[in-house]
Amino acid sequence: MSDRRVGVVEAVRSEPSVCAERIMTRCEELARHSGQPEGLTRVYLSPEQCKANELVLGWMRDAGMSARLDAIGNCVGRYEGERPGLPCLMLGSHLDTVRDAGMYDGMLGVVAAIECVRSLHERGKRLPFAIEVIGFADEEGVRFGATLLGSRAVAGTFKSEVLDAMDKDGISMRNALSRFGLQPGEIAKAARRRDEVLAYAELHIEQGPVLEAEGLAVGAVTAINGATRFALEVDGLAGHAGTVPMGQRRDALAAAAECVLAIERGCAAVPELVGTVGKLECLPGAVNVIPGKVRFTLDLRSPRDEDRLAAVANVQRAMHEICDRRNVTLRLARTHEGGVAACAPWLVEQIGQAIALEGLAVRKLPSGAGHDGMAMIDLANVGMLFVRCRGGISHNPAEAITLEDAHTSARVFLRFIENFRPRAT
Amino acid sequence: MSDRRVGVVEAVRSEPSVCAERIMTRCEELARHSGQPEGLTRVYLSPEQCKANELVLGWMRDAGMSARLDAIGNCVGRYEGERPGLPCLMLGSHLDTVRDAGMYDGMLGVVAAIECVRSLHERGKRLPFAIEVIGFADEEGVRFGATLLGSRAVAGTFKSEVLDAMDKDGISMRNALSRFGLQPGEIAKAARRRDEVLAYAELHIEQGPVLEAEGLAVGAVTAINGATRFALEVDGLAGHAGTVPMGQRRDALAAAAECVLAIERGCAAVPELVGTVGKLECLPGAVNVIPGKVRFTLDLRSPRDEDRLAAVANVQRAMHEICDRRNVTLRLARTHEGGVAACAPWLVEQIGQAIALEGLAVRKLPSGAGHDGMAMIDLANVGMLFVRCRGGISHNPAEAITLEDAHTSARVFLRFIENFRPRAT
Repeated sequence: MSDRRVGVVEAVRSEPSVCAERIMTRCEELARHSGQPEGLTRVYLSPEQCKANELVLGWMRDAGMSARLDAIGNCVGRYEGERPGLPCLMLGSHLDTVRDAGMYDGMLGVVAAIECVRSLHERGKRLPFAIEVIGFADEEGVRFGATLLGSRAVAGTFKSEVLDAMDKDGISMRNALSRFGLQPGEIAKAARRRDEVLAYAELHIEQGPVLEAEGLAVGAVTAINGATRFALEVDGLAGHAGTVPMGQRRDALAAAAECVLAIERGCAAVPELVGTVGKLECLPGAVNVIPGKVRFTLDLRSPRDEDRLAAVANVQRAMHEICDRRNVTLRLARTHEGGVAACAPWLVEQIGQAIALEGLAVRKLPSGAGHDGMAMIDLANVGMLFVRCRGGISHNPAEAITLEDAHTSARVFLRFIENFRPRAT
Repeated sequence: MSDRRVGVVEAVRSEPSVCAERIMTRCEELARHSGQPEGLTRVYLSPEQCKANELVLGWMRDAGMSARLDAIGNCVGRYEGERPGLPCLMLGSHLDTVRDAGMYDGMLGVVAAIECVRSLHERGKRLPFAIEVIGFADEEGVRFGATLLGSRAVAGTFKSEVLDAMDKDGISMRNALSRFGLQPGEIAKAARRRDEVLAYAELHIEQGPVLEAEGLAVGAVTAINGATRFALEVDGLAGHAGTVPMGQRRDALAAAAECVLAIERGCAAVPELVGTVGKLECLPGAVNVIPGKVRFTLDLRSPRDEDRLAAVANVQRAMHEICDRRNVTLRLARTHEGGVAACAPWLVEQIGQAIALEGLAVRKLPSGAGHDGMAMIDLANVGMLFVRCRGGISHNPAEAITLEDAHTSARVFLRFIENFRPRAT
């Protein structure tokens, strides 16, 4: 049925075309392979991932690609250029999900890239470079607590100690690879050489509300934001809620509340910086006891490392002042530190041109969420195309895009591919 | 050994005397009867309460009292006055504890009252009124979620629907009473007539830091504060911590943090008013997710009902303003409302005189914590004597008093008893 429909489209217009219905249907098909009875959870090296891989490898072959599973379990499809063996434009995204996920985060980028290659293949069109599409086996890191496993393996930065990481059932990654039919000792074979890859480009839902707020279907990503995370603990003094006068309290929650607002204020003052206290635990946690201890987390992100690091310093100073004044103790532990992964300006430019060629306004925006590009940047220059998602909601079954936006974004992505010019070296 | 020591004291001084060592030792003895292997938890109608009752009834009889368990399980000792059957000055406190409790909250008042009667008995002294000492079986309400069960039964305000309340193992209070050897249908028999009781007086640790801060061993309580409690819920919008710009957030935690500070500010502005957010739960509670929902509690107390009710209105208004401005929803449910239980001025006066007779400064202060007097006030006028406790800490294994303060407070209490004059009617 899909083939027939494409045939119709081809008959009525000769310009490059993509089928948005097929993109949507395939995202739904992938979502059926889940480790939970209701909703979608598909983690690395699971039986459901095996089924999803079969689907994806089949679609790649249908689109005229040679297709294989690489040493870490990524689906890799290759569409040769004007002659075999040319360096490639690498396209992709991930096929694993968070728990209780939506069906577009990751998968849309793989399916859309295959759809673009299919369009070339249908027209018998070959480009002056090869195209490879990768469905990364792990980006979210749900199973083994380490993220970007698929893209790190391709970029040659996979750390072999992760093989000893255990999932919640006590199965090591090493063991899980063997059970999946892969060789733990051969992951290095998934790594690609820099001269094989001209660039890495990814289509992905925005996972935020910016495009929707501005009424835009797509945007060109400028950078994947850097992030700093802290685990914090405020130690005050628990006491009876009825007996300790306000002036004699060392209330850990009141201090933490002031910190939360200082973080909010400090981040709102800097463009594109965001800071979030996502987790907060109040102890002992009884209606009639003054909180003696509060544990909370802080996640700070920015498209500019200098902004993020300045905010980290400012917010730390503000929190120490608050806690000193309140005679409570503040302890901080930095749990994550990752710099900005900037998209290459020449790729942002070419993606912007593709957007303009579709008659759309070119909006450039940073990505607050992490993506495979953060790992791929060690192998090649990175570009990303964002697609509007409903309400900016992601990592949630309510994640949604429109058929129209699927169409627009795939058309833009195909424009980008067909007009792609490797960076002059 | 205790007897010999009292004998020595009696030999060297003829004035009324109490043995502080015995008071401390008996508190320690009671603390050994616990439902947890380490530390102290003794809830209503438990096997450990049965053992504690045996001890207390024995001590009452040793002190020259007739002693019995009443229909709800309170230990009741009676020391007749100059002739049998006179109305009584009722003394007491509770014998149950919170979980992981200290050993003085409640028990000290029972043990000290028995010690005072023992002193009268040793000297063969009879007063122009009887004395009754009650060890209330439930004040904390840990087991069935309803507090003051013992004192409400004595005051005649026990609500029979509480008999259907279940403990965490699904045992109803009705059932637990039967297993304990009591008749659920006969609780009304524990109620006393108003003409039997001249006044109710209780010695209790302060459970707060005021006396310690002022270097005082004891204080006369003016009122048991009234309290209002709320369960609150802030509904914002969860989102990706990296992707939602600060200006587009509806962060439930940031709103709740502002509420916490508004409560703190509003309460600090009114003398003797206290307000506490003791419990706060942040959902979904992930480092990289903007909080979509926060549930918290508010406990407001004051020795003046008008101050408390004004603060309730002010704080509610402030929180609604905060949440409206932040475009999040605030829901409040009032979970408790209890007015001030004022101590009778004539009893505050007589307790103050007893303090002065011991050569101490007379400090009058409200009680932020709840006490059996809140129920007993329906039966008789109420007075309370507070004893300094270390660091103001209570409901905690670290709860502590000094031997010297045990001595001072019991001497003051005995002075009060011996000089007690019923209110002129």
